Amino acid sequence: MKRIGVFTSGGDSPGMNACVRAVVRTAVYHGIEVYGIMRGYSGMIKGEFIKLDSASVANTVQRGGTILKSARSQKFMTKEGRQQAFDQLVNHGIEGLVAIGGNGTFTGAMIFEREFGIPTVGAPGTIDNDLFGTDYTIGYDTAVNTALEAIDKIRDTADSHDRCFFIEVMGRDSGYIAIPCAIGGGAEIVMVPETQMSEEAVIETLRNSWRRSKTSFIVVVAEGEKEGNVTHVAARVKEAIPELDARVTIIGHVQRGGAPTASDRLLASQIGIAAVEGLMNGMRNVMAGIIDRKLVYTPFEDTIYKKKMLSQSFMRMVEILSV
Amino acid sequence: MKRIGVFTSGGDSPGMNACVRAVVRTAVYHGIEVYGIMRGYSGMIKGEFIKLDSASVANTVQRGGTILKSARSQKFMTKEGRQQAFDQLVNHGIEGLVAIGGNGTFTGAMIFEREFGIPTVGAPGTIDNDLFGTDYTIGYDTAVNTALEAIDKIRDTADSHDRCFFIEVMGRDSGYIAIPCAIGGGAEIVMVPETQMSEEAVIETLRNSWRRSKTSFIVVVAEGEKEGNVTHVAARVKEAIPELDARVTIIGHVQRGGAPTASDRLLASQIGIAAVEGLMNGMRNVMAGIIDRKLVYTPFEDTIYKKKMLSQSFMRMVEILSV
Amino acid sequence: MKRIGVFTSGGDSPGMNACVRAVVRTAVYHGIEVYGIMRGYSGMIKGEFIKLDSASVANTVQRGGTILKSARSQKFMTKEGRQQAFDQLVNHGIEGLVAIGGNGTFTGAMIFEREFGIPTVGAPGTIDNDLFGTDYTIGYDTAVNTALEAIDKIRDTADSHDRCFFIEVMGRDSGYIAIPCAIGGGAEIVMVPETQMSEEAVIETLRNSWRRSKTSFIVVVAEGEKEGNVTHVAARVKEAIPELDARVTIIGHVQRGGAPTASDRLLASQIGIAAVEGLMNGMRNVMAGIIDRKLVYTPFEDTIYKKKMLSQSFMRMVEILSV
Amino acid sequence: MKRIGVFTSGGDSPGMNACVRAVVRTAVYHGIEVYGIMRGYSGMIKGEFIKLDSASVANTVQRGGTILKSARSQKFMTKEGRQQAFDQLVNHGIEGLVAIGGNGTFTGAMIFEREFGIPTVGAPGTIDNDLFGTDYTIGYDTAVNTALEAIDKIRDTADSHDRCFFIEVMGRDSGYIAIPCAIGGGAEIVMVPETQMSEEAVIETLRNSWRRSKTSFIVVVAEGEKEGNVTHVAARVKEAIPELDARVTIIGHVQRGGAPTASDRLLASQIGIAAVEGLMNGMRNVMAGIIDRKLVYTPFEDTIYKKKMLSQSFMRMVEILSV
Repeated sequence: MKRIGVFTSGGDSPGMNACVRAVVRTAVYHGIEVYGIMRGYSGMIKGEFIKLDSASVANTVQRGGTILKSARSQKFMTKEGRQQAFDQLVNHGIEGLVAIGGNGTFTGAMIFEREFGIPTVGAPGTIDNDLFGTDYTIGYDTAVNTALEAIDKIRDTADSHDRCFFIEVMGRDSGYIAIPCAIGGGAEIVMVPETQMSEEAVIETLRNSWRRSKTSFIVVVAEGEKEGNVTHVAARVKEAIPELDARVTIIGHVQRGGAPTASDRLLASQIGIAAVEGLMNGMRNVMAGIIDRKLVYTPFEDTIYKKKMLSQSFMRMVEILSV
Repeated sequence: MKRIGVFTSGGDSPGMNACVRAVVRTAVYHGIEVYGIMRGYSGMIKGEFIKLDSASVANTVQRGGTILKSARSQKFMTKEGRQQAFDQLVNHGIEGLVAIGGNGTFTGAMIFEREFGIPTVGAPGTIDNDLFGTDYTIGYDTAVNTALEAIDKIRDTADSHDRCFFIEVMGRDSGYIAIPCAIGGGAEIVMVPETQMSEEAVIETLRNSWRRSKTSFIVVVAEGEKEGNVTHVAARVKEAIPELDARVTIIGHVQRGGAPTASDRLLASQIGIAAVEGLMNGMRNVMAGIIDRKLVYTPFEDTIYKKKMLSQSFMRMVEILSV
Repeated sequence: MKRIGVFTSGGDSPGMNACVRAVVRTAVYHGIEVYGIMRGYSGMIKGEFIKLDSASVANTVQRGGTILKSARSQKFMTKEGRQQAFDQLVNHGIEGLVAIGGNGTFTGAMIFEREFGIPTVGAPGTIDNDLFGTDYTIGYDTAVNTALEAIDKIRDTADSHDRCFFIEVMGRDSGYIAIPCAIGGGAEIVMVPETQMSEEAVIETLRNSWRRSKTSFIVVVAEGEKEGNVTHVAARVKEAIPELDARVTIIGHVQRGGAPTASDRLLASQIGIAAVEGLMNGMRNVMAGIIDRKLVYTPFEDTIYKKKMLSQSFMRMVEILSV
Repeated sequence: MKRIGVFTSGGDSPGMNACVRAVVRTAVYHGIEVYGIMRGYSGMIKGEFIKLDSASVANTVQRGGTILKSARSQKFMTKEGRQQAFDQLVNHGIEGLVAIGGNGTFTGAMIFEREFGIPTVGAPGTIDNDLFGTDYTIGYDTAVNTALEAIDKIRDTADSHDRCFFIEVMGRDSGYIAIPCAIGGGAEIVMVPETQMSEEAVIETLRNSWRRSKTSFIVVVAEGEKEGNVTHVAARVKEAIPELDARVTIIGHVQRGGAPTASDRLLASQIGIAAVEGLMNGMRNVMAGIIDRKLVYTPFEDTIYKKKMLSQSFMRMVEILSV
């Protein structure tokens, strides 16, 4: 393999640049040329390719977002679009790809490989941590810390005013972000898709605590189906316990940005190296991940169709710690 | 004066604890006893008084929120409530008060003084910076920095995805928070109550920039009348420029919390000292503030009825810097 | 078991309070009384015991340092001292202990148990991460992130001035802190006790990079035997490559403080719960840890005498990534 | 004026990029071309000029260091060097300069203007805040906040272990950085060049506090003549009060880096605009500054030869607040 391409796709996450940097430097280290493909599959179709060398990625390890930009591409979902992407790769002499993103990205890569035979190794770049095949995804640790810092600040106000704050954090289908935020943020209650705690149970718990003369509360709510979910819950609680001074805060998009934490930089670097060396060793249609501190390559089919389960023990922790 | 009370009232702001600490230690320094009154006027009525000494405020200078807690008091708005508050003060031998808060707090203190003769010196504790009689209020600098850090993170995503973010920051009637956030956050547009920029003008500006092939934007919007104002604006823009990938983020309550910045700790300390020494010198019904780096005492009547104007030059800065 | 004691001992580390909080709340949850023992073994001897309940540890999860304070105790190293400690425990009806600290702490607990039969379960509280029996120690993740943030700031200056910075991070006998700092901080070289890279090799590497016209460098140096080690290395390099503008920075004690990261709060909470439940289940002379995301109790003898090895793969990463 | 140059010189400071950005965009706004001159006078001599437009400075407002780099130039101190610099400017058609730096930078610009008539307007870019002609210099607020955050972390350990920390902050000839760090960091003592507190007085104060059973202390020491000054003081104290567990920390170079605070971004932006508009209005040999929130241009002669005095009231504050 003489020349590879690297791109980021899907929602951006902190550490993507650290991963791109690792991909580039590992390629250089092994004497392989590397091109950055701008805006994911969209740029691949349009031929937005940039030659990268070691200096191109200097001073990027700490930067949030992605220097290669990211975009959705309707066109890549068509055969015609993929043909154009393939032609661009051929014209540029690119023989393998590193795709940094999530399951949408990997699905595209898998179809693309079946049709045109271009091998791709994936890197799990998403704050949601909901990818099978790795303990943690790139950006997850940063997102959790960002949300937690926000909760720390909100608790200052909650305590000062004896209020109940309903705080929504990201995490569409899972409580991966909500759980450590609840435990680390000293929350009384956490609402995550995995347990489907009823609004009645929330009300009951708050009412009991209130009676024991606890006066300030944090309830962490995972985003769920759509952003703003939290507003509904808070309204129900206000109705049921009018004496509670309830407020809503949605942490929102800040969770996607910022300088990556040490863990995310380390993970992104490990995976970036593994992705390139995987390609060199003939791998394709796999995602590089770290499970129990060991490097693991998981077939895209598994990352896409298998579900990573959140440990039930965490739910028990929230219960114990809010005693 | 042998014994004074100190309390925080209204919305909490970072630096309130630094101010309480300065009040306590200045009193101790001058041989005056000091009581903390919990939950503002509400605790004054109920007699929630705590004797404070130098050690009571150790390790509080960096803490957000207020260790004396804050609350609204309907009862203090009645003559009967104020009578009870006065009785409590007399019973505890308290001869003067330091009130840390905003105009609502000072209005209460002024009426109280007229009726019962208890002197109060005020300290401007609010993130909004909309108090006449001081260049900056305690908590303002921290709130701006908190909002700005959030904007920095959001810009990572805005750039990575070529999006337009509408970001709402606090500041009910003024652009004090919005302006430095816009200038420091590299925003293209800032919407503040002082200028009442029309939605049409916002759309026009964004459309022009879009045509010059600028693809990511930050629009900072002051909260205005009520939180969530920004949603309406963003909806109008989306309608008018559908090709723009517009998103909304409300920074929200995090702006009230967190460790105070150096400036806020210094300001809070200066004002806390000045408040106690003002009381000692027979002052009453005045707020201690810093104007052009000099200590100034302003009558509550002026802080309440006069309006501090935001310099027009800042609006011009946003225009120049977003060229 | 009806009543237990908890204490912190040895160097403080961020997350100790989160662990104390978890110990207290888990005890309360299970109907066990819990006393905080101030200043480690020193306070145990003197009888500095404080009854703790759920509210005692409210709002401590995010605080650095240790509310129970820490101290060294020469006296506990004598039989007489331990006898006094035992008498105090008996007088207070304390039947088991949770000790948060490192190997010095556990050694004391082990001897104490042999002599007096008081069971102790340990929690790994040290920033150094050099304890066998857990993947990570409480405080390690925070210390690494603190050091890394400092390096990020120093790199601004290194780049602006084309300088070479020698940065010393903590970690007496190991490179656990230095390695992620080097990888995440974009360092060219990392010097850790495990590899004993010679000064000649450092000089050679820098000279080669300089010739390839690289002009700014970061060299991360683990503290080693004693603080200030880095100064010697930097002096040797300056002598050998006078054209290099070399500077030294010792990150120092800031690495021990600050609000714990999400990971450290989660780990501290897991271990605090496990320690109490371990005691309840009759365990003694073991440390609770997390290995490969599973709870593991390791005998003190192993934590003390076995050595946790730093993966060699990390050294290779630094080499690849500084290409 | 059709074309101007901008450069940074001397020690880097946070906000320099925000100032460069303001210079560039203000020039563009007024239809003036602008070149970045790399590495200060050194790059001016070598002709390291880069054409800058509005996009060149996008996403730089938040970055520490300086994208134009900085360096010292021995050669510019010779007539021959300045002649070469002038020739380069003439060749590039540059008619005016904005110099971001301190007194060394301004001295060079003044001599250069006398010899060759090229007008320069200066911007105060230094963390030290010791420039006459402006209340605050660009980077000062950030440096203070960085140092203060470090002190907050160190205090966690100081409190946990009952220690006395001697903390050195930057500020060669003045206490501008030390004073707010001491007040905001809850220090017992501050040692600054302006007051020359004797070591005996330090020992006396600590001994008295120790007797009143205060057990943890922070002493903030301004760097003074050379870095490491603090070590000597601490050694003397240890000798005099052996029971005190005294430690030394030098905050060091981190104070120069990092994302600028809101205040620094605002100040840098105001001054960048003012510098360009000053040049347009025929100004030369002046530094733009903000005094009492008003824009002021001060002759280089005054910034160089007049001394800005630190208010004595701050020293009194430290005394009161450490009661």
